[in-house]
Formats: sequence, C-alpha cells, structure tokens
Amino acid sequence: MEAVIWKRPCVLALRSCGPFASCGSRGASSFRKGGPAPQRTFIVRAINSTGSGAVVARPSSSHKSKRSEGADGKLVALRQLFHKPGLQMDAYIIPSQDPHQSEFIAECFMRRAFISGFTGSAGTAVVTRDTASLWTDGRYFLQAENQLGPDWMLMRAGTAGVPTISEWLTDVLSPGSKVGIDPFLFSSDAAEELKDTLSTKDHKLIYVYDGNLVDEIWKDKPEPPTAPVRVHDIKYAGLDVPSKITSLRQNLLEAGATSIVISMVDEVAWLLNLRGNDVAHSPVAYAYLIVELDSTTLFIDPSKITPEVMVHLKNSKVTVKPYGSLLLEVERLANCGAKLWLDTSCTNVAIVDAFHSACNKYFENLAKRSKQKSIKERKKLLDAKSMDIEMEGPLAIHKTSPVAIAKAIKNEAELEGMRQAHLRDAAALAEFWTWLETKVVQDKMALTEVEVTDRLLEFRSKQAGFLDTSFDTISGSGANGAIIHYRAEPDTCNVVDDKKLYLLDSGGQYVDGTTDVTRTVHFGEPSLREKECYTRVLQGHIALDQAIFPENTPGFVLDVLARSSLWKIGLDYRHGTGHGVGASLNVHEGPQGISYRYENMTGLLGGMIVSNEPGYYEDRSFGIRIENLVIVREVETPNRFGGNSYLGFEKLTFVPIQSKLLELSLMSPAEVKWLNNYHSEVWKKVSPLVQGNVREWLWKNTRPVSIHSTA
Amino acid sequence: MEAVIWKRPCVLALRSCGPFASCGSRGASSFRKGGPAPQRTFIVRAINSTGSGAVVARPSSSHKSKRSEGADGKLVALRQLFHKPGLQMDAYIIPSQDPHQSEFIAECFMRRAFISGFTGSAGTAVVTRDTASLWTDGRYFLQAENQLGPDWMLMRAGTAGVPTISEWLTDVLSPGSKVGIDPFLFSSDAAEELKDTLSTKDHKLIYVYDGNLVDEIWKDKPEPPTAPVRVHDIKYAGLDVPSKITSLRQNLLEAGATSIVISMVDEVAWLLNLRGNDVAHSPVAYAYLIVELDSTTLFIDPSKITPEVMVHLKNSKVTVKPYGSLLLEVERLANCGAKLWLDTSCTNVAIVDAFHSACNKYFENLAKRSKQKSIKERKKLLDAKSMDIEMEGPLAIHKTSPVAIAKAIKNEAELEGMRQAHLRDAAALAEFWTWLETKVVQDKMALTEVEVTDRLLEFRSKQAGFLDTSFDTISGSGANGAIIHYRAEPDTCNVVDDKKLYLLDSGGQYVDGTTDVTRTVHFGEPSLREKECYTRVLQGHIALDQAIFPENTPGFVLDVLARSSLWKIGLDYRHGTGHGVGASLNVHEGPQGISYRYENMTGLLGGMIVSNEPGYYEDRSFGIRIENLVIVREVETPNRFGGNSYLGFEKLTFVPIQSKLLELSLMSPAEVKWLNNYHSEVWKKVSPLVQGNVREWLWKNTRPVSIHSTA
Repeated sequence: MEAVIWKRPCVLALRSCGPFASCGSRGASSFRKGGPAPQRTFIVRAINSTGSGAVVARPSSSHKSKRSEGADGKLVALRQLFHKPGLQMDAYIIPSQDPHQSEFIAECFMRRAFISGFTGSAGTAVVTRDTASLWTDGRYFLQAENQLGPDWMLMRAGTAGVPTISEWLTDVLSPGSKVGIDPFLFSSDAAEELKDTLSTKDHKLIYVYDGNLVDEIWKDKPEPPTAPVRVHDIKYAGLDVPSKITSLRQNLLEAGATSIVISMVDEVAWLLNLRGNDVAHSPVAYAYLIVELDSTTLFIDPSKITPEVMVHLKNSKVTVKPYGSLLLEVERLANCGAKLWLDTSCTNVAIVDAFHSACNKYFENLAKRSKQKSIKERKKLLDAKSMDIEMEGPLAIHKTSPVAIAKAIKNEAELEGMRQAHLRDAAALAEFWTWLETKVVQDKMALTEVEVTDRLLEFRSKQAGFLDTSFDTISGSGANGAIIHYRAEPDTCNVVDDKKLYLLDSGGQYVDGTTDVTRTVHFGEPSLREKECYTRVLQGHIALDQAIFPENTPGFVLDVLARSSLWKIGLDYRHGTGHGVGASLNVHEGPQGISYRYENMTGLLGGMIVSNEPGYYEDRSFGIRIENLVIVREVETPNRFGGNSYLGFEKLTFVPIQSKLLELSLMSPAEVKWLNNYHSEVWKKVSPLVQGNVREWLWKNTRPVSIHSTA
Repeated sequence: MEAVIWKRPCVLALRSCGPFASCGSRGASSFRKGGPAPQRTFIVRAINSTGSGAVVARPSSSHKSKRSEGADGKLVALRQLFHKPGLQMDAYIIPSQDPHQSEFIAECFMRRAFISGFTGSAGTAVVTRDTASLWTDGRYFLQAENQLGPDWMLMRAGTAGVPTISEWLTDVLSPGSKVGIDPFLFSSDAAEELKDTLSTKDHKLIYVYDGNLVDEIWKDKPEPPTAPVRVHDIKYAGLDVPSKITSLRQNLLEAGATSIVISMVDEVAWLLNLRGNDVAHSPVAYAYLIVELDSTTLFIDPSKITPEVMVHLKNSKVTVKPYGSLLLEVERLANCGAKLWLDTSCTNVAIVDAFHSACNKYFENLAKRSKQKSIKERKKLLDAKSMDIEMEGPLAIHKTSPVAIAKAIKNEAELEGMRQAHLRDAAALAEFWTWLETKVVQDKMALTEVEVTDRLLEFRSKQAGFLDTSFDTISGSGANGAIIHYRAEPDTCNVVDDKKLYLLDSGGQYVDGTTDVTRTVHFGEPSLREKECYTRVLQGHIALDQAIFPENTPGFVLDVLARSSLWKIGLDYRHGTGHGVGASLNVHEGPQGISYRYENMTGLLGGMIVSNEPGYYEDRSFGIRIENLVIVREVETPNRFGGNSYLGFEKLTFVPIQSKLLELSLMSPAEVKWLNNYHSEVWKKVSPLVQGNVREWLWKNTRPVSIHSTA
C-alpha cells in the first residue's frame, strides 16, 4: 500500500475526535501551512469499496456519487442551522475524519461525503452563508469534479495560488465573523492553529458542542458500529496487558503525569490486546482508554464486550465505562488534581478543553475558598510542560503519546506473527498469480480489474487466520496504474490483459499479522520505456533494502536512496517511500516513515516495521510500484563507530518480482545478485506451502537472471 | 576545509555584533538547545596561526596558551566590575565571536581567548561570582584541558549530561540573579532565547552597553584593524553595485520594507564589490550597510577608504559614514517611520533593540500628541511579519537577509573566476605534491607538518592573483590527521614521512576565486585498514559527486550518499559533508550546506558552490578526507518529472586522488570509471600549466586504474 506520513507536528491538520469517539491513526491531511516543505502532493489512502467480493471483506463505504442530486437542499438545510439560537455562524467546516483521527472510518462519520457528495478519503468541506467549497489534493481532483454538485467549488489544495482553508476563510469572511466546528472532530492542535489564523482578522472559532450540524439534516445516517471485540491472543501479542500498562505507568511517572487519555483506537487495541471490528480493514473498536497510576478505564459501548473479553479485562484490572462518559471522567480527573497527559496532536479539542475548563474551575474555587492570590500562578502552570509536579492541583501535560512508539517497536512474538502471516500471504499470492497468468496468457482472457481483485480475495481468504483485506485493493491496469490512489469500479474499470502493465497493491489482515505488498507485471511485451522505468524503480527498492545506517537515523534520510536511480533520468514519484505497519493492526501506523516529509524526525529503531515501495507513474499511460514490508533490525557490522548500533532491513514479503520487466544492462552486478538472492529465498520459504502448477509457477519465477558481465 | 553549517534557526547560537562592528558569517555555535537533532559533534573551523610563512598570509591569531598564568588575576579583576554602579551582576558571558558573527575574527575581538587562555575557535566563557567555566565541543576538549587555568571548569558541550549554558546558568544561580552580556556580541535571536530560558527561574538578562567588561581589564588589547579596502574588479564580480542594490530594493518592496541593515561583513563586501583586509583568510572589512529605497550608506572606519574606493562608492551612490554612527542612524530610521528589515539571526541585539526602543518612543510620542488610544495596537504590529505596511509609523520586519541567497548563487563571471583560480591552485598543488613526494620518497626526508605547510604556501603564493590562504592549513600526519580540526605547531608537530597517512586540507584566496581542497596520501605502504577506509571515503565522495536531484532539494537529503559506503561497515564521520564557498570571499558561507543538520531546509540551486568532503577519522591512528569543490548546475535529463529542473555537480577542483590507497576490489566498475574520467580531466586541464618533473608527476598520478572485471 502506498506510503503516507503520520503525525506531523507542523501540519495544520484538520483532524478530529468526537462524541462517539476515540482516536485513530494520527491523521494525514492535505492542509499544510506554508513552511519550507517541498511542494509535492501528499498521498493518503482512500476509503473505498472493494466491490462485491464473495467473502468476508467489507467495503469501507457504500457511499456512491450522486451528482448534484439534492445537494442544494442539503446546503439550504445546513445553512438554516447557522441561525440556531446562540450560534449565528457565518461558516461551518466539515472535515473527513472520524472523531479518532482514524484513517479508515465507520460510515456514520462520513459527514463530509454526505454533505458534498465527494467520497474520496481526504477532503474538507467548508460551507459559508453563500458558498460551499471542498478542499482536496491532486489524487482526487478528477473524482471531486465528477462528484461535486454545481453549488460546490473545488479547491485544488497544493496547487499554486490555492489558499489553505484557514487562509481562505480568514480572507473571504467579513472581519469579526464566526466559524463553527464540531470540537469532537478537530484535534486540539488543529483547532488552536485554526483559531490563531482566524483571529488575525478578528474572526472567532466557535465549538458547536450541541450535536454535529450535518447529523441534524442526515436523515438516513447509518448507526454507529456495534461489532463485538475479541481478545488478541497472547501468543501473537507477546506481552500481556498488565506488563504494557506497567510500562505506560512508568512513562507517566517519568513525565510527572498521574494519568493519560489514550485516544487513538489502534493504541487502545494494542495496549489491551483487543481487536475490534468497527471499521473495514482496521481491526479496531471505537474506544478511549484512561490509564491512571492505580486504575485503567476503557470507554466503549458495553454491548461490544463479550463475556470472554470481560474476563480478559478483569484479569488486567481494566474497568469498563460507557463510551459517552469520557468527558465526565476527564472533568473528574481535573477535580481530583490529576496531572493529565494529553497528546494534543490527536486528542480532540472537546476533550482537551473539557480538562482545561475543569482545571480553571478548580483553581477559581480554590482561590475563592482560600482567597489566595495564587490563581494567576496556577493558571500559568496549567499548560506547563515542566516536570515539576510537586504543586497541588491538576495539570495538563501536552506530550506525544508514548504508546505510538511502544506499539511501533514490535516484540519477538509480534515479529514472528508478521513473518508467518507473510508466508501464508505469499502462498496465496503465488496461487493468485499462477491463476491470473494462466487466464491471461494461456486462456487469452481479459479479466476486469474488479474480477481480479475479487479472485485475489478468495485466494487470501483460504489462508488460515485470514480476517479481512488490510485496505481496499489497488488493481490498476495500464493508465489506471498511474492513478496512485486508484479504485476499480465494476462499471467503469479497465481489463487486465497482455497489452499493458498491471499494478496490484493489496494486503491482508490475519490473526497473527498484517500484510501489504505491491507487484507490477506485464503478461505480454513491455515497451523499452516501461522496462527502463521498472528497472529504475527496482534499483531504488534494492538500494533502500540494502541500506545499513546508525540506529535512530530518521527515516527521511534514507528516502533519497529509493529515488536516486529515477532522478538520474529526471523521474520521481509523488509519494513517500515507506510507512509503518501494525502487527495484526492498522496497515498504516506511525510514528516512523521513510519519506521526503522532512519534519518527521522519528529515528528508526530495531523492531519497527516499514514498507519499501518506490514507484513511478506516467500519467495516462502506466504505473509501477514494487513494495515489500521489512523489519528494522540490528546488523553485525565489523565496526560500531561512536558506539552506535547499526541497523538494516529483514524482508517480510516473499513474492517474486517479475524479471522479464528488467532491463538488465542497466543493473549493476550487485543489484542482479540482490535479485537472485531474493528469489532464492522466496523459493526456499514459499515452495513448501504450495503444490502443483503453483509450485511450478513459483519455480519458474524465482530462477536467477544473469548479465553478460562477471564481478 | 571540513564542512560546517550555517544559519540554523533552531540553534541557541551565542553570536555577536558590536560597537566596533558589522556582521560576518552567520556563526556556527556549539550551543544547541534540545530538539530532535542527532547527537553528533558539531564541527567548526578554528581560528589559528599558520605558523611563520615567508609570504603574505597572516596568522589569524597570535594568542598562545599561557597555562593558568595570570588567570586568577583576570577573573578577580573581571568580577570586581560586576559591582559597578547600576550593574550588580551575578554572571557575565563572554562569547567567542566578533560583533559580526564572523567565523574568522580580528584579534581585538578575541576576548574569550584573553580571559580564559583557551584559543580554540569555538567556545564560550561564563564567569559567575565564584565560578569560571568554558563550554567547547569535542574537537577542543584536549586543547582546552591544556590551556585552561586551574580556576576554570571545562564544560564538554555535546557530552551526555552536560547542560547548555542557559540551562546551567538558570540552574546554578539563585533565583532572581542578573546575567550580563555585551549586547553587541549576541544576535537578537540568541539573546532572546537566552532571556527566555533564564526567565524560567526569574533571572534577568542584562545588556551591558557601557563597554565590554573584558576590554576594561585587557591592558594590551590589540587595536582594531585599519587595512584599506579595495575594489573587487567587475570582471570577477560580474554584476555592478547599482544592479545588486536594485535587486535588493526589489526584495525590500516585495517584503513591504523600506530599508535594511546588512550586518554580515561578507554580505557588505559582496553587495558593494569591495574586498577588505581586516581579518586573516577572509577578504572582508568590518562594516555595516544600510540600504534604503533611495539611498545606500556604508558604515566603516573612513581611513580604510582609498580615493579609488571613494570614486567607486560615489559612482554607486553609496554614502560613507563612520562605523560608530550606526545606532544613531537606526534610531533616525525609526523616527522617520521606516519599515526596517532586520535579520535577527545575525544582527546583534544592540541594533535590534535600538530600533525597537526608538519605535516605542515614536508611538508613545504619537499617542501623547494625538491622545489616540492606538498605542497598544501599534505596539502589537511592531513585530508583525505582516506585509501590510499601509499603516503609518516604523515597523521592524524580521526576516532572513536576502543577500545571503543572492550571494550564494554565483553569476557566470564569478563561476569563471572560481574555475580559473582552481586551475592555478591545482598547478600549485601539483608542484607541491611533486616536491613533497620527492623529499619523502627519494630523499628519505622527514619534514615537519609545519615545514610542509610553509612550503605549500610558497607554491601557492607564486600563482597569479594569490592573496592569502583561505583558512589555516590543516596538515595532519598519522594520528594528527584524526584531529578533524588540527593545527600543527612548530614545537609539537609530527613529521610527514613514508610510514603514515598524511591529510592536507588547504585553500587559497585569489583575486578571482577561493579554493578549498583536501587530499590524503601515503608515501609508503598503507595498511589494509587504511586502504579500506580510504576506498569507502572515496566511494562516498563519488556517490555524492554523481548525484542528480530535483532543483531545490535541501542539501541534507544528499548527505547520506556520502556516508552509505562507510555505514555498511559501521563507520561514520562527525562533520557535515559540504559547505558553501564564496567567490573570492569567505571559504565558508551559507545558506546552503550538505549535512546531517536537518534543520537547514535551504534548497540547492544552480550556481551555488559547495564542498564535497566525506572523511573518516580513527582516533590516535589516522585521518582521511577527500575534498573537491563543485558547482551546482542544471543537467540535461531525458525527462523533467513534474516540470522540475534536475541538478548535478560540475567539479572545480582538479588535483589527483592517490590511487595506491584504493582497495580496487571494493569498487564497482562505475566507481572506477568515475576515477579514471576524473584523472583524465585533471591531466587535460592542469598539464598545460606545469612543466618538467611536475608534469611527469601529474602524468603518473592521473593514469587510469583497472579492476579485473568488465561491465
């Protein structure tokens, strides 16, 4: 799955956390503010339907485009709500995320899609009294043009001259206007930044606590998901819940905190060794967690808790409370003088403000009672990042959640689960590719991209422990391969045949691991251009795979290795090279990444998992991507300069790389050797899992290649 | 010359600008504050004597270590001044820079060396009522230990557990203490950051305007330099002064400014096509420049202006005022309602505060007169970076000086001057290496590192247009080569013989260009270890030299290319890979660089000059560095993805790379080809400039090498 970037501190991300909420993936956003970062398009996976498969994987959204139908009516109805008593708003912002910053969201949160008709994964709608605009990025311009009604204006984010939402609003509204947001749908950081920008023209940002305005006009709004959660087996989790909570409490003590709100749904799932089923592709449940020094409370719809899960939670001394009671609990914490750790980059401003308000009240009451003059002092300390907690009273400690990094560094059981899941996934893919090659080459069939996707799911679903696809399969033939975020639709999709390149990016969720692999193939005669581009993409992949680097090197340092071969002939690709991957969890996770987003200073550490997926996309022609997942691991170097550990990559993915697409004369002997070694490993590891013609296909497709040179 | 980094916005740099001042190179500092940057040592070139050469190059400092002699007395005398009327200070900070943030400084500014005895280029002394401490970085620990008296404490900056100066002061002083600085010696940014940190414990930072306290006890303080300035010929400058000033005024208009203070001495030199002689190695004069929309004023000691220069200035409509009258002029600007562009990262806080205070007075008077209630509003706008200058009254616009980037992008005349200077420099080096090889190999002589340095200067000084060395030559034999910043001293230095590696990093200032080149050689039998390390350093050099990359790629992106080959075996080097170089100006200039200092987002652009100098240093054993200067140039790629220009490097340096040190079996065919092509170019370009045995040496040392493979 193509790489995205996580948790950018400098990004004005329009993120969210809501009334029905916890906090998912630290959301990517197309709303950057200025800064020196390169002007490249920011790539995020879309939330899209897989089409109708015969098996378990569910489409992540059933929203369909309804060009302009009813759009007017929706806008009229929404604008009427601007005048509700006490509101008198001039604009309302409808972001695309769920309340937990999740990348994949439940349908009941797809308010932006409902109001605008645009179903892409990234985009924010802004409705003023007389305009309706949608910001999205380059991947979605075409789709948005097709889906938006005539009353909507498309704002092509990242294009020269197109302002950010906050810039535009600041500029277009008359001074002193009121801009409303649902405070559950914006992270505290995003809301603060929005507020700051708006204030330069005396606009006010107002939090509409009294229900989401879109919900009020969304008659057939889907119900919140109610799927039961399950226990993630300790043999895959590797570490029991009390151990994880103990480590987290250690983090709290070191930071001078007494409690923390965990707001991202994959962090909650990881900490509690639970998996959910609320959202397609991500095995998570909507929930919050509050960990205090002596108690742990899970906020979740109690109907999702099976008796088995209840036992598991009791054994871990975790109390369950209703999902909706979180804010009350946050206020209680303030009243008890808690030093509360809040990750404001992913915790919604409703939660953060609830705590701050309760703190203010606490000190005001204290002052009233004791007539002390210390109010001001206390208030000053309220937001301090200081470690000094010797003082009485509550304190907000704004710091990145320590769970993200703990989760990113996999333990041996998690790594072993990932290895095993990848082998079964590789066997399924060997079966799939054998089938597809037979159909296209021998039977001369032209299958649609959707048919191919459906069949792939069947092969995967036969594997032990398969649960779901880990994202909507990207199945792009010919020109569709060049649409980095492509979703094949049954009625419009292309055919896979022996005339064009075919790019397939897919992955599975298994009980023991999560996979994500991309291969690009040609069943006929590739052009010289296709071969040169493919070879250079593979050279980038190899260069990154072979990198050895000091521990804690930020991922972006390695990004250039994957691009150099393309740059030599003036080519490039507009997405990151690698993203973190969860262990039987979200296919995209932070905090690490390998990308040209240079703000992400997270160092690579042993035990992290990242993708290695350079690509090249020729508009209206073809797309190429070659993706493996790899484990970051310490390597034995003959020296350890400066006492540093040196790290390299262990491959997780074992799927043949089509050799016929290679222009071998461009490759160095070392690169050829890498390919041959890889294929030898693929044969050794995957051949025991397949039989008959699949084994034959695997044998044929793992034979060494040679160039006319030696060395 | 080994690479350093320039102009780091996030660095708490203790920089300066003073009563006898303008503003030199945007100073490097070892005082980083927190942040996620890697814990590597920060390398800065030292200011050191070249020893006694027979020719024109002057030592940059004649300070010698006097271990503890008189140190006590100085501290006692200094501390007495803490109690001057109105002061009552608890600590005084003495930084190492001159008032212009120059890297190389005049002797009269070497106050830190005077007070502490420590003569290294980087370091800051902090004297409290009962302690005296010196902060310096890893390059200088040994030297500082030797030079500091018994009353001094060495603070090993960058070492685990060692606080920064501001942290330490904040912690060690009793709450509410007063810390004094000379406001001419700290950039506004550095002073502000210091003030902020100190204020967390209610300490006050006070600006001692009434003369530098060290000067008061420095009896035999050298006089300020008085060397005359000269006109830098238009045939080398390429662009006349009126054209440069016109461009700068365009920058002012675009930023909404009406005037700017240029505070770095190389920027003044570049803008006015002048060169000075106030400081060793850097052809600059101490001066400030104020450019307004309709006038240009140079602040300089008038005795430095020759009649020829006066004509040149008059032709460019530049007025001359005494150096010391700058602050008055800055105040006048405020009174006239100027919108003044100030680069607070390199302009001293005395200047910035003078303007701010005058602005405050302006608005107070305005309010008094008109009894308007707008004072607060005005004040709010004072520091605004807003482009809105429709309002009346003065305004400070804090932005990076536009001259840095204009100077960094060389025009064709400057590039041609650099090319020509490098060819003559290469001829001098060919003569030098021929001489040295003969002495060591044939005559079996063991010459001292200083003797070799002196002789090198003689060869250079015979070349047309030679003016000075561009920095103190680093001449390190054996273990001394591992001291990245090594300065050979006649009485303690090593010999250059056929037993050890010899590293020579040197450069020249010529009328048409500035050179900087490092070669490492062995005149006998190098060990396998030396050969492997040398080969890997060269591989890094080659990888960087061959890079092709999109225009505007930040230099740090390429840094990994120079390190990868070393990382493969767990080796690294603790300095950046490349620094900018001036055209017949400072050998170190910003804003671009190639380094692991990831904050420097300056994109590489065609016309910039950078060094390419990976190295490897084995403590107490040997040092290796291979350095060429290169021009960043657009290359013709078969594609231009995203409409981007692609850039590569054109070599400026043409000096043989010793092939006998190579372990050819480690090298790829492409790397061998690079080396052979380079040597073929060296022969073609430099052989016409040398005769006899030098030509013979050049022929021998530019022969192609071959490995047993083909491809």
